[in-house]
Amino acid sequence: MKKVSSSTVARLSLYLRVLEDAATDDVRTLSSGELAKGCATTAAQVRKDLSVFGTFGKRGTGYPVPELVAQLRAILGLERTWRVALVGAGRIGAALLGYADFRRQGFLIDAVFDADDAKVGRTFQGHRVRTDRELEAAVAAGEIDIAIVAVPAEAAQDVVDRVVAAGVRAVLNFAPVKLRVPAGVALKNVNMAAEMEGLSFALANQERPARRRAAC
Amino acid sequence: MKKVSSSTVARLSLYLRVLEDAATDDVRTLSSGELAKGCATTAAQVRKDLSVFGTFGKRGTGYPVPELVAQLRAILGLERTWRVALVGAGRIGAALLGYADFRRQGFLIDAVFDADDAKVGRTFQGHRVRTDRELEAAVAAGEIDIAIVAVPAEAAQDVVDRVVAAGVRAVLNFAPVKLRVPAGVALKNVNMAAEMEGLSFALANQERPARRRAAC
Repeated sequence: MKKVSSSTVARLSLYLRVLEDAATDDVRTLSSGELAKGCATTAAQVRKDLSVFGTFGKRGTGYPVPELVAQLRAILGLERTWRVALVGAGRIGAALLGYADFRRQGFLIDAVFDADDAKVGRTFQGHRVRTDRELEAAVAAGEIDIAIVAVPAEAAQDVVDRVVAAGVRAVLNFAPVKLRVPAGVALKNVNMAAEMEGLSFALANQERPARRRAAC
Repeated sequence: MKKVSSSTVARLSLYLRVLEDAATDDVRTLSSGELAKGCATTAAQVRKDLSVFGTFGKRGTGYPVPELVAQLRAILGLERTWRVALVGAGRIGAALLGYADFRRQGFLIDAVFDADDAKVGRTFQGHRVRTDRELEAAVAAGEIDIAIVAVPAEAAQDVVDRVVAAGVRAVLNFAPVKLRVPAGVALKNVNMAAEMEGLSFALANQERPARRRAAC
């Protein structure tokens, strides 16, 4: 398989969402043009992205929806359940635990850790909060495929270093800080503060006479 | 001013965070190397990013922390308060309203809208929920600089079309769908489902014999 860019993988996620909606509506086939429309891209891009992974559909008849859903789920690693640990039992963590889509996709958040002993042992969105001193043992016991880091910025690198040293190979980071991970570990960042600042930057600069399109 | 890429703007946000932390600790100067270290980038990148906006600091003495904080805040449009409306009073919205950093940065979420009449009029994280039929009037009244879209995927494009038609020029989208906006409107997306699928893709492919670094 060729090296696949993260933007291609992100588009596969969007294609899957459109295809799943179509499947729910009992649509049997979708053309690359129809798929592109739902994802704000072009038919050529859809064909190019999918061609990386094989030959799907027949020329002139469109992509068979249920088959492509199954194939994209396999490509994206969604045919199995991934065990997810949330580190940081705060507001962001609460929202993530309530995010029904995760479970539907096969991401099972079934362990919650916090460094604050006042939170440990309490119930948090239906989960008992465990002390973060148990993190390494939980990884060693095979309880964690993916770690979600939702701790304050100054604590984030330490948490990541610990779970990675213990064997975790995928991290979703919500702390507003750029984290370092070794090669072989996948890291995704969600930095809402930075996204908002990107918007205020665009607005502040749009207010000058020459308006221009903001990069996004 | 030169055209500035969104990745440069995102790094400015990280520099600001590191500088603000340094200011809190009464650090007076930071070298480009020190700044780079806190943001997982290089000293050369720091100097290049900042040079786009002017000359900061003196060779050999580092950047003066309080001054650079003020300058970055001005560059990022953070010297004023932006009025933010949340569209969609669900779990994601609740987390955003509780995200103290937004207010500290100058983003004031002071209007909440929902299409569900059962939610309208109720208190949601301290805000009264308004019917989304009032959206256009709120934009016209100057109540909304930035719209946060946290509605189901199938409703998101319609909400964006409406607020943009009414005059909003900055949108933060949490719906798992690629949205279209006209030139001159800034759009940022936070798609947690796609980030998670990026991780599962990396894990599923890492499990093959030849491990390779996941793109991030």
